[in-house]
Amino acid sequence: MRPIRISDGNVEVLDQRLLPIREKWVKISSYEDAYSAIKTMVVRGAPLIGVVAAFGLALTAPSKDLDAAATKLKSARPTAINLAWAVDRVLNAAKNSADSYKAAYNEAMNIFNEELSNARKIGENGERFFEDGDTVLTHCNAGALATVDYGTALAPIRIAKERGKKLRVYATETRPVMQGARLTTYELLKDGFDVTLIADTAVGYTMLMGRIDKVIVGADRVLRDGTTMNKIGTFQVATMAKRFNIPFYVALPSSTLDLVSELKDVKIEERDSSELTQIRGRRTAPKGVGIYNPAFDITPPDLITAIITERGVYYPPFDFTKVGP
Amino acid sequence: MRPIRISDGNVEVLDQRLLPIREKWVKISSYEDAYSAIKTMVVRGAPLIGVVAAFGLALTAPSKDLDAAATKLKSARPTAINLAWAVDRVLNAAKNSADSYKAAYNEAMNIFNEELSNARKIGENGERFFEDGDTVLTHCNAGALATVDYGTALAPIRIAKERGKKLRVYATETRPVMQGARLTTYELLKDGFDVTLIADTAVGYTMLMGRIDKVIVGADRVLRDGTTMNKIGTFQVATMAKRFNIPFYVALPSSTLDLVSELKDVKIEERDSSELTQIRGRRTAPKGVGIYNPAFDITPPDLITAIITERGVYYPPFDFTKVGP
Repeated sequence: MRPIRISDGNVEVLDQRLLPIREKWVKISSYEDAYSAIKTMVVRGAPLIGVVAAFGLALTAPSKDLDAAATKLKSARPTAINLAWAVDRVLNAAKNSADSYKAAYNEAMNIFNEELSNARKIGENGERFFEDGDTVLTHCNAGALATVDYGTALAPIRIAKERGKKLRVYATETRPVMQGARLTTYELLKDGFDVTLIADTAVGYTMLMGRIDKVIVGADRVLRDGTTMNKIGTFQVATMAKRFNIPFYVALPSSTLDLVSELKDVKIEERDSSELTQIRGRRTAPKGVGIYNPAFDITPPDLITAIITERGVYYPPFDFTKVGP
Repeated sequence: MRPIRISDGNVEVLDQRLLPIREKWVKISSYEDAYSAIKTMVVRGAPLIGVVAAFGLALTAPSKDLDAAATKLKSARPTAINLAWAVDRVLNAAKNSADSYKAAYNEAMNIFNEELSNARKIGENGERFFEDGDTVLTHCNAGALATVDYGTALAPIRIAKERGKKLRVYATETRPVMQGARLTTYELLKDGFDVTLIADTAVGYTMLMGRIDKVIVGADRVLRDGTTMNKIGTFQVATMAKRFNIPFYVALPSSTLDLVSELKDVKIEERDSSELTQIRGRRTAPKGVGIYNPAFDITPPDLITAIITERGVYYPPFDFTKVGP
């Protein structure tokens, strides 16, 4: 399952807002298309929004101001670092070539192919942590639909399955956008996994009942000490896992590492109040209520057992300057 | 705001499934009516389902088998202890009187009036914990709509407001039934509170941001060591509060105390999978997914700062045999 289709300069993405009800593809022909698709969450997931932004910028007409287009694209969502990283790569490639249009497109293809390869390597590096018979909890969707294939958090689970290990997966609903209920369950069922959906409120009790052996999630940005920005709710899943001594893994391509920023400089996106006042067009809260809707949270490194990237596995205290530990 | 209306033997309850969209009243004329209203969550909240069951049994025609009716009523929801407690009181009153119909109705009225008085006293006993300017998080709905008036968790907040303290309230959505989004926000807005709704996933991050000073919740059953059964999600809210040294209070009438049962004997209700696969009739998860939907969880006493009842305030180690400490 791939959420992006590329052939001869035509790029289409799967509209993830409509899943699991309907599969509709949306054409990306310009940076404006990419900006809109990222902003409105037609596509989401740190690696995927990087790839989509890269193609959006690469497909922008040569007559346009590429710097302005890059700035606009980077503003679509502030927390995932992959977005800025991918846009800058394409912009630099364009600037350093006589045929800037071709160079930009080639760089977008490079990013796409690297993420494809990274996902597989993350899976191979992380597979060792999952034993036959394990039940694994994941939060949000860090699967094929968040990347270009395999996923980040779901890659080790998929590789484990390919190698004959039988795993069961628990997916949290992941309010408010419900990526767990709509996307993780959808893609894992298609792959033949045994998947159980729980409310976000049920994480602690499900662990208390002894139903969870391991937890794995993706990330939108990881700082140099291992501090992890990921979907809102990750922090409390990690806290509950710690209480029960359940291993808590974070899986990401190294494009998600941010070895430069300080925590205070990372912007945590707050999204529209309508995500909490209505569901699929039906009102679920009274008018006049205040809304606080942060889209991501911050998990401190002391709650993380290991961080899995395509380069290798890192253990606390995290040091990402080592290549392939 | 009262979710139950009683006059001259006529009992009506507000259909809480339709809130905050519509206010519809449902007549309770028999134990069958009460069973159905409790089972399908027309009414919910430990104190209120006790009161509704009491009136349902009291209004059952004398020709019916009261013992069978009582057994049926108690089976409607297994976790809240108030249900069995109220039904047994009405049954015993009926059995110990020549005019069993009248005795049963009077006992139901006694229970109603006691819960009314209890809620006010819980508020007075708990009010001391809230200071002017505090922001208070609550989970689920332990307000007027869960009781007969004032509420349990919301009673101290209401009394504090009556006494001139200005409090802000954060309400969790409380998936899957969304009592926080639909009911707590609704009743507090009606009372003129400043209310902010957050996703259940946002509890930890909201605390990390320093937005929460105190937490207060209700309970469906509290064992003699303080172990608390309450709405699914309470355990992780309490765990996060502990991490940030935020006081965590539990408020309940003493009808919610269960000084007899062992933890292993308490049945945690699991509810229908449709609560997680659709919202207001719209599908939110793919067909074929497994569902685990426990309605309550278990908070250990070490996470609780104080337990507030109409008799007084209890601190760890909890000893409820003392009256009014």
